Amino acid sequence: MNAQEEIRAADHQQVQGTIWGVGLGPGDPELMSVRADRLLRTARHVAFFRKAGRPGQARRIVEGMLRPDVVEIAMEYPVTTEIALSDPRYNARLSEFYARCTARLRTLSDAGHDVVVLAEGDPFFYGSFMHLFTRLEGHAPLQVVPAIPGMAAAWCATGLPITWGDDVMSTLMGTLPEDTLVQQMRNADALVVMKIGRNIEKIRRALRSAGRYDDAWLVEYAAMPEQRVQRLAEAEGKVTPYFSIVLVHGQGRRP
Amino acid sequence: MNAQEEIRAADHQQVQGTIWGVGLGPGDPELMSVRADRLLRTARHVAFFRKAGRPGQARRIVEGMLRPDVVEIAMEYPVTTEIALSDPRYNARLSEFYARCTARLRTLSDAGHDVVVLAEGDPFFYGSFMHLFTRLEGHAPLQVVPAIPGMAAAWCATGLPITWGDDVMSTLMGTLPEDTLVQQMRNADALVVMKIGRNIEKIRRALRSAGRYDDAWLVEYAAMPEQRVQRLAEAEGKVTPYFSIVLVHGQGRRP
Ligand SMILES: C[S@@+](CC[C@H](N)C(=O)[O-])C[C@H]1O[C@@H](n2cnc3c(N)ncnc32)[C@H](O)[C@@H]1O
Ligand SMILES: C[S@@+](CC[C@H](N)C(=O)[O-])C[C@H]1O[C@@H](n2cnc3c(N)ncnc32)[C@H](O)[C@@H]1O
Repeated sequence: MNAQEEIRAADHQQVQGTIWGVGLGPGDPELMSVRADRLLRTARHVAFFRKAGRPGQARRIVEGMLRPDVVEIAMEYPVTTEIALSDPRYNARLSEFYARCTARLRTLSDAGHDVVVLAEGDPFFYGSFMHLFTRLEGHAPLQVVPAIPGMAAAWCATGLPITWGDDVMSTLMGTLPEDTLVQQMRNADALVVMKIGRNIEKIRRALRSAGRYDDAWLVEYAAMPEQRVQRLAEAEGKVTPYFSIVLVHGQGRRP
Repeated sequence: MNAQEEIRAADHQQVQGTIWGVGLGPGDPELMSVRADRLLRTARHVAFFRKAGRPGQARRIVEGMLRPDVVEIAMEYPVTTEIALSDPRYNARLSEFYARCTARLRTLSDAGHDVVVLAEGDPFFYGSFMHLFTRLEGHAPLQVVPAIPGMAAAWCATGLPITWGDDVMSTLMGTLPEDTLVQQMRNADALVVMKIGRNIEKIRRALRSAGRYDDAWLVEYAAMPEQRVQRLAEAEGKVTPYFSIVLVHGQGRRP
């Protein structure tokens, strides 16, 4: 517990339960931290996001680890594919959803229950848990357990170090506009591109414009059973899953 | 084991031992992966870097975890403070040193011993293990275990998510020239600056020029017993240890 969290916890009566944002790492259960493993195996209340009707990746990672008497709290994303990301209603729907989730978690905390919220990769690195965290701050004791981000499993899977010496590494979201992608791809030595999916053709064009296309790798499902590693140029025309990362390795100084 | 590693391993007779680059994470032993924990507790041969006369941070992290009959292989960096980083002799000395370490590890592998090489944070992210890895490739079976990078523990310690929505995050080394730092600090939303030490005043100036100074945090010894989190502006005139990270959090879109 850091100083800030101690104060936060002390602000509340001892009866409130703690809400834990627990990073699960990239997917392989053996790549969870010892702390995450311990918390999961003993947790009475486990909450996780998923799309309606889907098992949810975070829940899948912990399959077989939870107590038989665990109470599971599935937080189901409202269907959002029919609303564009740019539409203000998109944000409004999501915001409403997070408020509902927060209320549910607060009720549990107020009743004295600790709750483990599952987070894919690291909770504070482009994670959905952050949206609960900021809403819960000041209302319930909070703890965050950092984890291996998906990208670390991705570069490990390529068998090549991602950064050397003074290399600058940039992480970019495939949802960025093409010209921003090009500019950023020119400005950094090592690149990590996440949220690929439907943005794959835009990402390819940007990498080509920046002269980085031939050095790019595509890693699908890093550290998951379906893991697949290939040169991006070898995967042309293929559909990329949500759990995909594009990498360009740095080539910095090495003695 | 990924496909590449399987081929590498198959190229060698079964008698060769595997050299494992095992990431230990930021410092707290509970933040090691379950796999790293298991490998360490069962390892017969454990190798690690350290400065001559120092215990070595990686070795310190695993204190109390190793088998009583473990064989420890301390790889001691040649004293380098009297040679400037820009001096070609610096690289030559280091290169010689890595060649010596590699020879030692190959001898063990050839004799059929597995060796666990300790790596601080993630092995493929600005790590020293990479220098052994590239020299050992094709000569001994190799495996790498990814880990939580120091920066993830650092942003967790600030109690603030590092990236939101489409934020661009850049990781920068404090050893970069000041003008490069300024340009990069202007171009990204979230910033992670590593290798602080003697570069701290240059980093402060660069953050000021880029208009990011007031939003910067300094995290010393993230996830270690001496952990300390403060605003960078509050730490003026203070000496920063080797294990320090400067962070500027992204402020991207959040529903
Ligand atoms: C909302 S972000 C969450 C990132 C996560 N918090 C982390 O630390 O990796 C989702 C994106 O992360 C990437 N990702 C995370 N884990 C991955 C994995 N195991 N394999 C491939 N991509 C992954 C994909 O690009 C995906 O679109
Ligand atoms: C040679 S790099 C190694 C990075 C490591 N492989 C990783 O994944 O974090 C050394 C730098 O990492 C940063 N660092 C690594 N772990 C840290 C920690 N626990 N606390 C603060 N800084 C850390 C410091 O900036 C240090 O100068």
